[in-house]
Amino acid sequence: MVVKVTIAQNILAVNETVAAEIRRTLAARGLRALNLMSSPGAGKTTLLEQSVRRLRPELRIAVIEGDIETSADAERIEAAGAEAVQINTRGACHLEAHMVRDALAKIDLTHCALLLIENIGNLVCPAAWDLGEEARVVVVSTTEGDDKPAKYPQMFAAAQVMVINKLDLLPYTDYDLEKVRRQALAVNPALRIFELSCRTGAGLDAWCAWLLEFARGSRYNGSSHTSS
Amino acid sequence: MVVKVTIAQNILAVNETVAAEIRRTLAARGLRALNLMSSPGAGKTTLLEQSVRRLRPELRIAVIEGDIETSADAERIEAAGAEAVQINTRGACHLEAHMVRDALAKIDLTHCALLLIENIGNLVCPAAWDLGEEARVVVVSTTEGDDKPAKYPQMFAAAQVMVINKLDLLPYTDYDLEKVRRQALAVNPALRIFELSCRTGAGLDAWCAWLLEFARGSRYNGSSHTSS
Repeated sequence: MVVKVTIAQNILAVNETVAAEIRRTLAARGLRALNLMSSPGAGKTTLLEQSVRRLRPELRIAVIEGDIETSADAERIEAAGAEAVQINTRGACHLEAHMVRDALAKIDLTHCALLLIENIGNLVCPAAWDLGEEARVVVVSTTEGDDKPAKYPQMFAAAQVMVINKLDLLPYTDYDLEKVRRQALAVNPALRIFELSCRTGAGLDAWCAWLLEFARGSRYNGSSHTSS
Repeated sequence: MVVKVTIAQNILAVNETVAAEIRRTLAARGLRALNLMSSPGAGKTTLLEQSVRRLRPELRIAVIEGDIETSADAERIEAAGAEAVQINTRGACHLEAHMVRDALAKIDLTHCALLLIENIGNLVCPAAWDLGEEARVVVVSTTEGDDKPAKYPQMFAAAQVMVINKLDLLPYTDYDLEKVRRQALAVNPALRIFELSCRTGAGLDAWCAWLLEFARGSRYNGSSHTSS
C-alpha cells in the first residue's frame, strides 16, 4: 500500500518555520541558544556540567538534554546547578525544532541568558535540523580518531565552533591535533577551535570566557584560530 | 507542493527484500556476512585491519567499507590483505541493502568465506537496516562513556555480539566494564561479549577464533558470556 506523505524537503521546511519561531521567542527574552553535537561519548554532558559549574556565579543557564532513552543527563546537569529538561526521542536519531519548542514550555527561563541544547549523540543526522540556535558547536575527542572532519564533513561545515575534548588522553593515542585542525578548517575555514580537557580543566577558562561573551550577544564567529 | 512517496515502512520492506536476496546469494557461495556498527571512532576499521592480518593465512576475507566520504578505510583494509570495496553514502547516515548489493558486484568473492561490512559510524540509524548479514556486531570503546547500552538500546538489542575495544585506555578513564556488561545484557541477554585492545592485541585471539568459527558456519550466538 502506498500512502501519501510530504517529502523530506517539506518536513525540513516545517522544521525551519518552528526553528524561526523559537529564535524569535528566545530573542524577545534576551536569550541566546547553542546547539551541541557530537558522536556518542565525546563528552558533551561533562562539558556542559563543567561549564554550568564554572559560570553559575555570573550566568544563569538553561539546558535541554536530548537522549534517545534515560533522563540521566538532565539529572547530572541539574545537580551542577542549571535549569534542565530532558527530551527522550524514543529511537529518533536527532532533535527537531518542535521537540525544543515543547521542552521550552517546561523550563523556567527567568533570568536565564544562555540556553544550551545537547543533541542526540550522532555525528550525521542532527546537522540537517535547525533548532532555533544562534550557533552550533561540534565536540570531538582525542580518542575517536583524527579523521572525523574528513569523514563527516556536513557536521563540521554546519558548525561555528569545534571543541576538541579529552586532551588528557592525547599522550595515550596517536591522535594528530594538527591534522584535525587542518581537516576541519578545510571544510569550514571560519571554524573557531577550542582544545580542552573536562577531566583536568585545561582549556576550560578560554571556553567559558567564550560562552560568557556569546551569552552577552557579542560576535561569536570571529577569525578562525585555536584557543586552548 | 505535496509529492507522493512510499512511507518509511515500505522503504524498509523493500530493503528487507533486497537483504533476503543478498542472504541467498551469499549462502549459495558459502559466504557468511557480519555487519559491524558503532559510534564514529570506536575502532571498527582498526579491528577489521587486525582481524584480516591475523586470519589471512587461514581465511580469505572480503570487506565492504561504508563511509559518508573518503576511501581511506578501504585503502587501509586492502593494505592489510583483504578484498575491499568502498561505499560512499554522500551524507546518508546508514548503509542500505541495495548499496551492499551494488558493492558485491564490484568485489572478487572467489574463495572468500567471510564478508565483513563496516557500517557508517552511527549508534542509531544503522540498527534498523538489514544488509543481508548473518549476525551483527556492535563495537563500543572504553573512552566513550559506560552508559551507551542504556542510552542507545535499539543497537544493542539488534546485535548478537558486543566488542568492547580500547581496553589499553581503561586505566585512564572511569569506564565501568561491569556496568556496561550489565546494561547491555539487560537489553539483550543473549549478547556475546568480547573485550579487547586493537593497540596491544589483548583479547584479539578470542575474537579471531570466534570469527573463524563464525565463518565456518558454526553456531555463533551461543550462551552469553565474556571472552577477553
